[in-house]
Amino acid sequence: MIHVGILGFGVVGSGVADVIDMNIDKINMHLGQELRVKKILDVRSFSDHPMSDRITVNADEIFEDEDISIIVETIGGAGIAYDYTVRALSAGKTVVTSNKELVSTHGVELMQLAERNTCSYLFEGAVGGGIPIIRPLHRCLAANRIMSITGILNGTTNYILTRMTEEGKDFSSALRRAQEKGYAEQDPSTDIDGIDTQRKISILASIAMNGAYVDPAEIYAEGISLVGVNDIAYAKALDCKIKLLALFINPNDRKAHLLVAPHLVSKEDPICVAEGVFNAIHVHGNALGGVMFYGKGAGKMATASAVVGDILDGALHKGRNAHITPWFFPSESVVAPHMDMPVKALLRVSGHPEMETVARCFPRSTMESVPVVTDTETAFMVGKEGLLTERDLERGVKEIPGFIARMRVYSPD
Amino acid sequence: MIHVGILGFGVVGSGVADVIDMNIDKINMHLGQELRVKKILDVRSFSDHPMSDRITVNADEIFEDEDISIIVETIGGAGIAYDYTVRALSAGKTVVTSNKELVSTHGVELMQLAERNTCSYLFEGAVGGGIPIIRPLHRCLAANRIMSITGILNGTTNYILTRMTEEGKDFSSALRRAQEKGYAEQDPSTDIDGIDTQRKISILASIAMNGAYVDPAEIYAEGISLVGVNDIAYAKALDCKIKLLALFINPNDRKAHLLVAPHLVSKEDPICVAEGVFNAIHVHGNALGGVMFYGKGAGKMATASAVVGDILDGALHKGRNAHITPWFFPSESVVAPHMDMPVKALLRVSGHPEMETVARCFPRSTMESVPVVTDTETAFMVGKEGLLTERDLERGVKEIPGFIARMRVYSPD
Repeated sequence: MIHVGILGFGVVGSGVADVIDMNIDKINMHLGQELRVKKILDVRSFSDHPMSDRITVNADEIFEDEDISIIVETIGGAGIAYDYTVRALSAGKTVVTSNKELVSTHGVELMQLAERNTCSYLFEGAVGGGIPIIRPLHRCLAANRIMSITGILNGTTNYILTRMTEEGKDFSSALRRAQEKGYAEQDPSTDIDGIDTQRKISILASIAMNGAYVDPAEIYAEGISLVGVNDIAYAKALDCKIKLLALFINPNDRKAHLLVAPHLVSKEDPICVAEGVFNAIHVHGNALGGVMFYGKGAGKMATASAVVGDILDGALHKGRNAHITPWFFPSESVVAPHMDMPVKALLRVSGHPEMETVARCFPRSTMESVPVVTDTETAFMVGKEGLLTERDLERGVKEIPGFIARMRVYSPD
Repeated sequence: MIHVGILGFGVVGSGVADVIDMNIDKINMHLGQELRVKKILDVRSFSDHPMSDRITVNADEIFEDEDISIIVETIGGAGIAYDYTVRALSAGKTVVTSNKELVSTHGVELMQLAERNTCSYLFEGAVGGGIPIIRPLHRCLAANRIMSITGILNGTTNYILTRMTEEGKDFSSALRRAQEKGYAEQDPSTDIDGIDTQRKISILASIAMNGAYVDPAEIYAEGISLVGVNDIAYAKALDCKIKLLALFINPNDRKAHLLVAPHLVSKEDPICVAEGVFNAIHVHGNALGGVMFYGKGAGKMATASAVVGDILDGALHKGRNAHITPWFFPSESVVAPHMDMPVKALLRVSGHPEMETVARCFPRSTMESVPVVTDTETAFMVGKEGLLTERDLERGVKEIPGFIARMRVYSPD
């Protein structure tokens, strides 16, 4: 019998209990023994819930229960969740979570702690909800150098951008719609400012860099709040969509370029299959070539599906580490300076300047004109041949007379 | 040190050696120890190859080498590959392969043999080439009942259908083009008749049915050789593409519907992202919802990437089974009778019959008319409300005066 304790009986925590209850026969068959949720920590009362007899307000009851070998941390955040995770791993109990904030900030310490205590810290649900990505990237692609990762990792922002594109809504009304539908929080800043995406790509990047930790704070991030209806119009004119992309580009396994920002993406690119609340993650391995993972990136049952998958892997490796390479702090950062990253961008300029006037601001790059979408402005494409850096772009746009805005353009490898 | 023996130094076998050579630093770091190809079995001479000193014509040298704990079987077929696999597993050596024919015909025996000898029989490369699907389906989705799988699993047929659609070629000239490009064999029947797809879906279905073996011979399969230019024209008129789909539909975990056949698929369906030699596999889990895996489904290095990934998993589980649930022969077949499967289809009839005349042949179904693509025939859609079975379809088309052909229509769940 494998006994599980759940910390936090909110959306994902109760989803974990629901998935176990719904599929217990399949789970027990897979495991070759019985799995049981023994105790659940929550301060709230759940008197109507079938598992109400297992709920406790006393964390010691779970940590000191020697039957419980696996702890599900579904508290969220990096406060008490961190303390409890340290306590569980120190006691040799495997911890399973979908807490991207905690993994992306304290992953190194927690994975090393798990390894020292011959247990595991597993987090398949932290990126892409139920979409398998952590284990495929770490295990199935283990024989590859990971050359690049391109992800649409946040369903809230993708839903807002999809509504803006399909219904011509502006950002604010698309955000309100997302809030009404429950796809965006009342304080939506973690999603719309790209912070959630930043955390998720830092997790994928740390795995792709063979465990060398990438701090989310090292990753330059722009959100979607400045995307306007004219940007959407240019996207349509260029047969593109606007997507909040997380990019990881790894030319040499020493320093990787990382970026979170809205991009123009060709409609023909496979990643554009992700519309609305869906996520897609494209990974390029040096042996494999490209593969893509697609599905709903959030939601109670989808995320719980990933968490319970990890519980089973943890249970099958009871008394051992489940072969997750622990992360480590590299001697120097593996993130290349943001300003050195190659970039391609659409430049919007008010009025009708000559192309040469604008081109003079970008001496290292050729320039192309772009279809007209409104008679009050003109747009140009810069950086197509790959010589332009973020530094060049930042300098250049400061010099353009009448500069309105720039939007990065995605170039797949 | 982990010592590997490779049986068969053809495309995939030499690809395995190349991937190990190319990424040895990453591989050794992942493993925490050194990996080395110690011996390679092949009757041919490879005097120019850097590993030529390790090639032997004597299989005993590999099987009797106690250092070698992992054997890569890249011989193919179910003849000598079967004998060697039995011999390796009986000696407690883990076997890794991309041999879909052997896994789909002798998987039960080989997995049980591996379990008895505390080693593993691993085959991530057998379906989807380098696309991670076996491990995600078995491990990451372990907490789900698998409700359905829809796969474009064969790059050759998908390439031919894509060429027919994009260039208006007929089947024979698209096949010739595929042969010229090396995407189709000189005898292409295994691919174009759907046999390769049948084997692959039988492997995925056996995993999805929790190890209850699905024999490929139980799966009804139609190939693509009868797909004609008029079918392509209807696809375009209906905003569809024609794809050779493998279907697994599992309403109750006791009997599953399985089918391999060309289908009309809505262009809006995410699986249509797979064009040319690409594969896509959509899996629906009862907790997770839908996820999709996409990438190049074949090729030397992509397949070798999956094989080497399995070598690493096998090495990390040395002296143990790598937790693959062994398949078993179910007491009765888990495949539902083909004739009971629900179906929706496009019917092509010569001339311009009244819809009622045709509808009379399908008393259990309503009927819809379809845009005209040629003035010599008329087409109707039948089965939209899900009441029509393959039996009804087969009976009905025999009764239609002037019947030309039928094409199944894919309805995602």
